[in-house]
Amino acid sequence: MDNLTHFNSQNRSKMVDVTNKEVTSRTAIATGQIKMHPETLNRIHEGKIKKGDVLAVAQVAGIMAAKQTSSLIPMCHLIPLTGVDIHFEDDNESIITCSAQVKTKHVTGVEIEGLLAVQTALLTIYDMCKAIDRGMIINDVHLVEKMGGKSGHFIFDEQDKN
Amino acid sequence: MDNLTHFNSQNRSKMVDVTNKEVTSRTAIATGQIKMHPETLNRIHEGKIKKGDVLAVAQVAGIMAAKQTSSLIPMCHLIPLTGVDIHFEDDNESIITCSAQVKTKHVTGVEIEGLLAVQTALLTIYDMCKAIDRGMIINDVHLVEKMGGKSGHFIFDEQDKN
Amino acid sequence: MDNLTHFNSQNRSKMVDVTNKEVTSRTAIATGQIKMHPETLNRIHEGKIKKGDVLAVAQVAGIMAAKQTSSLIPMCHLIPLTGVDIHFEDDNESIITCSAQVKTKHVTGVEIEGLLAVQTALLTIYDMCKAIDRGMIINDVHLVEKMGGKSGHFIFDEQDKN
Amino acid sequence: MDNLTHFNSQNRSKMVDVTNKEVTSRTAIATGQIKMHPETLNRIHEGKIKKGDVLAVAQVAGIMAAKQTSSLIPMCHLIPLTGVDIHFEDDNESIITCSAQVKTKHVTGVEIEGLLAVQTALLTIYDMCKAIDRGMIINDVHLVEKMGGKSGHFIFDEQDKN
Amino acid sequence: MDNLTHFNSQNRSKMVDVTNKEVTSRTAIATGQIKMHPETLNRIHEGKIKKGDVLAVAQVAGIMAAKQTSSLIPMCHLIPLTGVDIHFEDDNESIITCSAQVKTKHVTGVEIEGLLAVQTALLTIYDMCKAIDRGMIINDVHLVEKMGGKSGHFIFDEQDKN
Amino acid sequence: MDNLTHFNSQNRSKMVDVTNKEVTSRTAIATGQIKMHPETLNRIHEGKIKKGDVLAVAQVAGIMAAKQTSSLIPMCHLIPLTGVDIHFEDDNESIITCSAQVKTKHVTGVEIEGLLAVQTALLTIYDMCKAIDRGMIINDVHLVEKMGGKSGHFIFDEQDKN
Repeated sequence: MDNLTHFNSQNRSKMVDVTNKEVTSRTAIATGQIKMHPETLNRIHEGKIKKGDVLAVAQVAGIMAAKQTSSLIPMCHLIPLTGVDIHFEDDNESIITCSAQVKTKHVTGVEIEGLLAVQTALLTIYDMCKAIDRGMIINDVHLVEKMGGKSGHFIFDEQDKN
Repeated sequence: MDNLTHFNSQNRSKMVDVTNKEVTSRTAIATGQIKMHPETLNRIHEGKIKKGDVLAVAQVAGIMAAKQTSSLIPMCHLIPLTGVDIHFEDDNESIITCSAQVKTKHVTGVEIEGLLAVQTALLTIYDMCKAIDRGMIINDVHLVEKMGGKSGHFIFDEQDKN
Repeated sequence: MDNLTHFNSQNRSKMVDVTNKEVTSRTAIATGQIKMHPETLNRIHEGKIKKGDVLAVAQVAGIMAAKQTSSLIPMCHLIPLTGVDIHFEDDNESIITCSAQVKTKHVTGVEIEGLLAVQTALLTIYDMCKAIDRGMIINDVHLVEKMGGKSGHFIFDEQDKN
Repeated sequence: MDNLTHFNSQNRSKMVDVTNKEVTSRTAIATGQIKMHPETLNRIHEGKIKKGDVLAVAQVAGIMAAKQTSSLIPMCHLIPLTGVDIHFEDDNESIITCSAQVKTKHVTGVEIEGLLAVQTALLTIYDMCKAIDRGMIINDVHLVEKMGGKSGHFIFDEQDKN
Repeated sequence: MDNLTHFNSQNRSKMVDVTNKEVTSRTAIATGQIKMHPETLNRIHEGKIKKGDVLAVAQVAGIMAAKQTSSLIPMCHLIPLTGVDIHFEDDNESIITCSAQVKTKHVTGVEIEGLLAVQTALLTIYDMCKAIDRGMIINDVHLVEKMGGKSGHFIFDEQDKN
Repeated sequence: MDNLTHFNSQNRSKMVDVTNKEVTSRTAIATGQIKMHPETLNRIHEGKIKKGDVLAVAQVAGIMAAKQTSSLIPMCHLIPLTGVDIHFEDDNESIITCSAQVKTKHVTGVEIEGLLAVQTALLTIYDMCKAIDRGMIINDVHLVEKMGGKSGHFIFDEQDKN
């Protein structure tokens, strides 16, 4: 197992030197869930038809957050993203699942960008529904898949959840 | 159950009007976890002694993110925070728990600020350890307690997790 | 007529001192238009039903921009906004009109916040439709009404347009 | 006529995938106007000589805003700009015209960057003169010319204004 | 002598709790210098007359930076500033002195806002002149005076420089 | 001696056109100092062992600030940094010296990024210690070395300090 790479000779944090890494196409897919009262999910469903679309706002929030990753996560490099897409699914009961696909052509990967997009989209759902449900829980936020770059193809092992 | 409040007469999102709400002292406490390989937690423990402190960076990231909440979450009001504190605990096996306490004296609550601080601190841990463990999972991010404001004292009901 | 107030004794710009101004409820309403090919407006109409809602994204962009006003306009004070709402209307031919209402309880007005919300919503429409229409024009961006504060009630005089 | 490109299979917005587009030199020129009382323009003229230069501040605001485009316009890609220049002209009566030229060497164009620079420069003029003239109107903001990239050379057709 | 106040019970940093501190008018004055080749100062002088005003840009940069203080300095509270003014003087040889006055009506002081305004204005001078002089040095950046708040009136003691 | 390059034909500021400059690896090293009461330095030393690490926070602040350079310094180009590292040393009496090394592979240099990292790290030390020492002074902030790019290898001449 390799060492943690974010520390310098004074044992303090640094932004890792990637000057000589190769520019390649990179994709990361991340996912996460928010669990709510069944009534809250009903309202979101109804809202989409009658009163407004919570997920449309969450979508925009997730995409915009992906672009702010290097401002929020201290040791992240600024990466000009070449594409961001977000999808929502729900189980018709109490759980909305969000997944984000982020792409770049750059020297480092975009896992953190994907995870931040998911977290922000889910937190936006929380924010817009909190007047009716403060007990919502965000769960199961993790990287699903990662392509491109020296570390190779990563696929999340569902057995890691246990 | 009340209605979703973030939509206007055109069924599109708005920032809710809080002009006439009362200024009061408000506190929110949020929590969340990150699950990792036991070896990863070992490295974080060792690092604190020998090579650098992952959690010190996560702490700063969480506090700074709390201040950016209204830039990231579309319908959130800007709230001048009067205090932010973050603590970490772990189970000595594979889970680090982060909790954030956020305070203000303002017309709206700071739940989202607390949740964003937790999410960002946990994602910073992911970022700094991802070179050795890409399968980490962020779980159980929720509001723990909320004091002050018209909606009264909220305490998370642990039974909501099931 | 008063003097321009944003310059100091060295004839350079300053942020005007409002330390002793009174906190009052303030509202500003701003408006603006974007003119496009009739076919582009058709697509936006259809999109809302079949393919996605351009105006929902523009709405979020306008609200978020209002919160960034003091970061973009050099001499603007940071004002914690207490409400932002945006509406769209169109003439069923080629013009979409956007209006924004912004509120605060603070020592200075929110005209610039309202105008920036309108400008950003309109530019977002441009961005999302530019692949099919690069000749769109943004017109008639102005303050409509302003309430609260020492300078009193302002209503835009339509004759000023000529 | 092509389709609107910013929507995904769930009919929600996405940041378009440009991973495989070619890096080329790109230039965009945008323009816009602000109409004011003749006395306000006089003050700006005088100010430049005696009391401070409104347009110098507007210039800086426009350049800095161009760099924030991807933070403000939800579906815009971050583009490292290689040059921004802004010019002002006036009709000696009541109208100041602003034009911005923006350059990059990247996979997408910089129209939005140019338009945002113009809008922000004009709004800064509004902000700095609003104490003496709240009825100013921003008009005629549009793309003038665009070079580089797959969509080819675009020149605004003045007849589109009618 | 009091303790450092920015650490919590886990010996990690926190944003100090100021929820119960009193709102009062507060002013801070900060200063700093940049030393350059005499020829560089000549160019700045000439530029103001013939080619452009370096200090006008530095002025805007300093004012805008003061508003970003809480985004840059991790443990700083967001403070809505009520006024910022910056002045420049030079010794006609090789040193430009910048001073910034910052005001608020809030629960904490604005020393850091003043110091950041000075630092940013001086660094902007460096940036705009670096093509002709890379050896410039920024010196003597310190708080000059501080009024308002519980800690009382502070005046910098010139003897501290030795 | 060359001309100041940041001004256009109207004698106003512009962001210099670097569209045709070559992409090369570039490094900048900057330094600076903060002078404090000996007792303040003692507290920082003790704190590192017993109560919390001021310099760990300053380190994170400096790295994050380097990434914000183009948002703060008006005429700076956005540069995706490929590495940032910061070190601290002290004289065991009253002076902490901070040095920052910044890297990129881009068309312009990163001097300003290095200087801003140093300034921000030093100001963070000031912020965290100001409760016990408001008379601290930031001195001697300058570029140490610069490699890569057309202007060649620059090494600061210590004699420039006199």
